[in-house]
Amino acid sequence: MKLPYGYRFSGVFSGMKRDKTRRDLSLIVSDFPAVAAGVYTTNLVYGAPVHVNRAQTPGTGFRLVVVNSGVANACTGDQGIRDAEKMIRLALRAVGASEEEKGLVMSTGVIGEFLPMEKIAAGITDAAKSLRTEESAFLDAAKGMMTTDTVHKVSYREIRLDSGQTVRLAGMCKGAAMIGPNMATMLAVLFTDAAVLPETAKTLLRDSVEDTFNCISVEGHMSTSDTVLLLANGAAVAEPVMPGSKDFERFSEALHEVCLELARAIPADGEGATHLITIHVKGCDSRDSAKTIAKTIAESALVKTAVAGADPNWGRIVSAAGYAGVALDADQIGLSVNGYELYRDGMPRKFDAATVSASIRDNHDTDIELTVGEGDGAIRFWTTDLTAEYVRLNADYHT
Amino acid sequence: MKLPYGYRFSGVFSGMKRDKTRRDLSLIVSDFPAVAAGVYTTNLVYGAPVHVNRAQTPGTGFRLVVVNSGVANACTGDQGIRDAEKMIRLALRAVGASEEEKGLVMSTGVIGEFLPMEKIAAGITDAAKSLRTEESAFLDAAKGMMTTDTVHKVSYREIRLDSGQTVRLAGMCKGAAMIGPNMATMLAVLFTDAAVLPETAKTLLRDSVEDTFNCISVEGHMSTSDTVLLLANGAAVAEPVMPGSKDFERFSEALHEVCLELARAIPADGEGATHLITIHVKGCDSRDSAKTIAKTIAESALVKTAVAGADPNWGRIVSAAGYAGVALDADQIGLSVNGYELYRDGMPRKFDAATVSASIRDNHDTDIELTVGEGDGAIRFWTTDLTAEYVRLNADYHT
Repeated sequence: MKLPYGYRFSGVFSGMKRDKTRRDLSLIVSDFPAVAAGVYTTNLVYGAPVHVNRAQTPGTGFRLVVVNSGVANACTGDQGIRDAEKMIRLALRAVGASEEEKGLVMSTGVIGEFLPMEKIAAGITDAAKSLRTEESAFLDAAKGMMTTDTVHKVSYREIRLDSGQTVRLAGMCKGAAMIGPNMATMLAVLFTDAAVLPETAKTLLRDSVEDTFNCISVEGHMSTSDTVLLLANGAAVAEPVMPGSKDFERFSEALHEVCLELARAIPADGEGATHLITIHVKGCDSRDSAKTIAKTIAESALVKTAVAGADPNWGRIVSAAGYAGVALDADQIGLSVNGYELYRDGMPRKFDAATVSASIRDNHDTDIELTVGEGDGAIRFWTTDLTAEYVRLNADYHT
Repeated sequence: MKLPYGYRFSGVFSGMKRDKTRRDLSLIVSDFPAVAAGVYTTNLVYGAPVHVNRAQTPGTGFRLVVVNSGVANACTGDQGIRDAEKMIRLALRAVGASEEEKGLVMSTGVIGEFLPMEKIAAGITDAAKSLRTEESAFLDAAKGMMTTDTVHKVSYREIRLDSGQTVRLAGMCKGAAMIGPNMATMLAVLFTDAAVLPETAKTLLRDSVEDTFNCISVEGHMSTSDTVLLLANGAAVAEPVMPGSKDFERFSEALHEVCLELARAIPADGEGATHLITIHVKGCDSRDSAKTIAKTIAESALVKTAVAGADPNWGRIVSAAGYAGVALDADQIGLSVNGYELYRDGMPRKFDAATVSASIRDNHDTDIELTVGEGDGAIRFWTTDLTAEYVRLNADYHT
């Protein structure tokens, strides 16, 4: 799979992480000024990078995204904003951008510490020298944004346009915990060589994020730094993808697929997790109701520990639906786990507990399907199980 | 401390729990018809006992509460309701109540199984024979409602009335997990020898529950069976406590104290918990806003694991406040943990992490005090830390 044209990448070690074998500073550079759009955390306590990016997007003239991991630059006041702006300026200068060109910045890691600007500056110089177009450089950049992630997370698509031309879309993300239903501690950069106007990019990104990054949860704790960015540099086709066209549909579909692949990779890599749980809620009055129920189930420690223990404890799932705050008729609730029907019309079904337990224990994926009525509102939501290892990781992760 | 007059108690083993050394069926009997009021789970999926009690309270003519532990009689349909009603009838007959006298019922344990009515019937006969007025019998009854509780939970008060007479109030409760902010799997029975009219009992109970049992959380999972009952038999003073009187104030205060003592005992006994966390949120526009923020902090796995690990990770607490859904000004947030100021006006304070960490590690109680502005809205909320032992208990508790 080819990467989008006109982008170069690097990921280097700048000294922020303790482990010197890991990368902690990444550059994603577009050789041409690109359009950029962003979707950000809705946490009222948000990091300096979110403040700086939000003020600039959607917009034009972007040449790069600079990312560091280890220090989140959140809860750092005016100094933090000055540091974030300086990071962008240093990176623009290092790649030889012109005065009027712009950049975006993302930081992840510990909250409440100031960025070590000397290390950052040296790392940016280093990263600028390492920029390459190859996939290995793209993977280096993806690794440079990792914190407690155990794997880097990337996705690619090619889109054949109506004209017969091909454009490319790729993305990278990080995230393994502090993942709430509104993107929590996750960073993602998506980039394409298609041309997209700023307002179109904003709409496309928001719509794709809604069903993907906004439908995952590890422990429901929304972070201060969540950011999804989309860059479009038009390196392959100068003619912009316009709303209402077939190309728009195709691009939108590919963007949705890339976001979904990246989003699911986050709970799949959830800290200490042994299961990726897909919660499919249907039969609701609205999509919002379905999402509220799915989120409540996803965030129940009792549901999550039951899956960790391979226990088909449907009572925990049904009772979580019951306190979600959505009106429902308990006598219409139905539930299947891994395709086994455990509950129908508000009453337990006879099932072989050993068989269902084995299907949970022996598979990495667990499917929960809850029907609450006959409405059209439905959603898919992804979460992890909750293991003793998650607790160990988060009790021992010292500030 | 003397127990209220006119009550007898017992707690026996009926065969529902696996461990024969434990009690699983309790009777609390009033020798005189009592007024009763109740507050119940707001879960839309609720157990048969909740259905049966809710239809009867507030009211008069109650002679007993019969409680079983091991089977919750929830998600059991019409059969469950018939079983709950039969439990009451069997108990009333066993204690020699008249035809028109009434009883209340509570069940806790596994969801979705029918009550083993033969064991229940034999247990009720046994329990009726064992009824005594002594404190040891009261403790037996408190033990009979325990599930994963490691200790029984009781509280007592005496109230000196304006007339110079003394009335007594006592209570017992159970609960250690599936504890959400609206009473989750907890059962409580409060009883007094004062006289209280039904509507007064309802108001008194609802007000006391609001600041106590409704302000605790273990993991935020609200159960199908939560019930708090208040019985008043007037055995000490026939003249009812009337709203607006000094006696009403005194009784209300004592009831609040008993509820608070019992409520705090639940997260203090939280499954696998090593800390009781008190979250004091103040400076909000309203009490509801303060409660929403406190509940969000209390239910953050990241906050709870940080306390388990004695980590003064204020970023997790402040960021939880930020996603609670309450409007706030991040620049006004202040935070103290165990009296150490970690954060003020939206910026971290310098503090000695080792000292604060030691204060968490070396004490069972952790105090979190969050100020979000200058309003009058404030609340106290209680929760546990989250330990690997909690996960082990709940992954291995099989249905």
